[in-house]
Amino acid sequence: MFITIEGGEGAGKSSLIGQLANTMQDKGYRVVVTREPGGIPIAEKIRTVILDPEHTTMDARTEALLYAASRRQHLVEKVIPALEAGEIVICDRFVDSSLAYQGHARGLGIEEVWQINQFAIAGTMPDLTIYMDVSPEVGLSRIASNPDREINRLDLERQSFHERVREGYHLLIDRFPDRIRRVDAEETPDRVLQAVVAIVEQRLSGI
Amino acid sequence: MFITIEGGEGAGKSSLIGQLANTMQDKGYRVVVTREPGGIPIAEKIRTVILDPEHTTMDARTEALLYAASRRQHLVEKVIPALEAGEIVICDRFVDSSLAYQGHARGLGIEEVWQINQFAIAGTMPDLTIYMDVSPEVGLSRIASNPDREINRLDLERQSFHERVREGYHLLIDRFPDRIRRVDAEETPDRVLQAVVAIVEQRLSGI
Repeated sequence: MFITIEGGEGAGKSSLIGQLANTMQDKGYRVVVTREPGGIPIAEKIRTVILDPEHTTMDARTEALLYAASRRQHLVEKVIPALEAGEIVICDRFVDSSLAYQGHARGLGIEEVWQINQFAIAGTMPDLTIYMDVSPEVGLSRIASNPDREINRLDLERQSFHERVREGYHLLIDRFPDRIRRVDAEETPDRVLQAVVAIVEQRLSGI
Repeated sequence: MFITIEGGEGAGKSSLIGQLANTMQDKGYRVVVTREPGGIPIAEKIRTVILDPEHTTMDARTEALLYAASRRQHLVEKVIPALEAGEIVICDRFVDSSLAYQGHARGLGIEEVWQINQFAIAGTMPDLTIYMDVSPEVGLSRIASNPDREINRLDLERQSFHERVREGYHLLIDRFPDRIRRVDAEETPDRVLQAVVAIVEQRLSGI
């Protein structure tokens, strides 16, 4: 089973993923946790091109194509082999991040970014996507008050950008209602975990 | 005016491009000759990832996305500014190469490769594409008899691959009959040049 975890900044994805993986392992499942580029050398090299601070002339479409290329290679070399070995793959961000951030919030268009990502994934979609929904106010204040978390470029975007990201995710829930399950990420971590485990077990039992 | 030159191996693209550029300059036009990645640092870095001989696990779709990314950046940084400055841009290979080689000959599908390339070019299509048509027998024998030309990986593919490339180009002529003009590249270089100059001038005069 292929599970992706999505959400805006400060939604609590990292903590949730660690706890979810532990819980599922305790229940006897074999679990792989990953995130792009996931230690795949070709995908890592592509990321190096994307993130090179000298590349100030990088066009938004070039960047979207590079993310899709990195995604493809990570999928082929890491995700698909693990799925074929019968493992539960939990991936921190996947195609919906590109759709919400680049497609909607950056204005490239969800439809257009979805086209190149369909080419990249060639049918391997997540069986389940957990969207950790948090308002930008709460998410950004969590980040500001957490001394362990390095502040990254996206954290510093104006709040209106994070509003657009959230709006993008909400459009995706409307578009993929069977796959994406929204979880209220403003609840306590324990309640969020409980809710997510329930959704995953329900999906595993085929209900 | 944006002109792209296409064709299989040994079609004589390089010689034709040099002669065409000289001819048009003699007629008073400002001409830029380029080919991807065209000295654009981001596009060059992307090519380095594609061509790295250590990347033996590179997936065909990853490669196609990287070519599209390199194309996008070259287009934005080099082709579009030259077109906006009123120059004639002659580009050695462009989107049709991806469609014929990767889409058709490698079997990814012309339609699918066209989708990601439409995202990459975002409407900037060539005004005119010259397809230099040569049979694989003639093209490959030209390469074999030319001591100045380094033999590359594609030259060594089986003849059936080059047949499929040609078939791919012929499908593209059917699909884009207004844009792509076929030239018989088995004619003498002088006659090929003459035919191409006539087509370009006709297009420039808006006939």
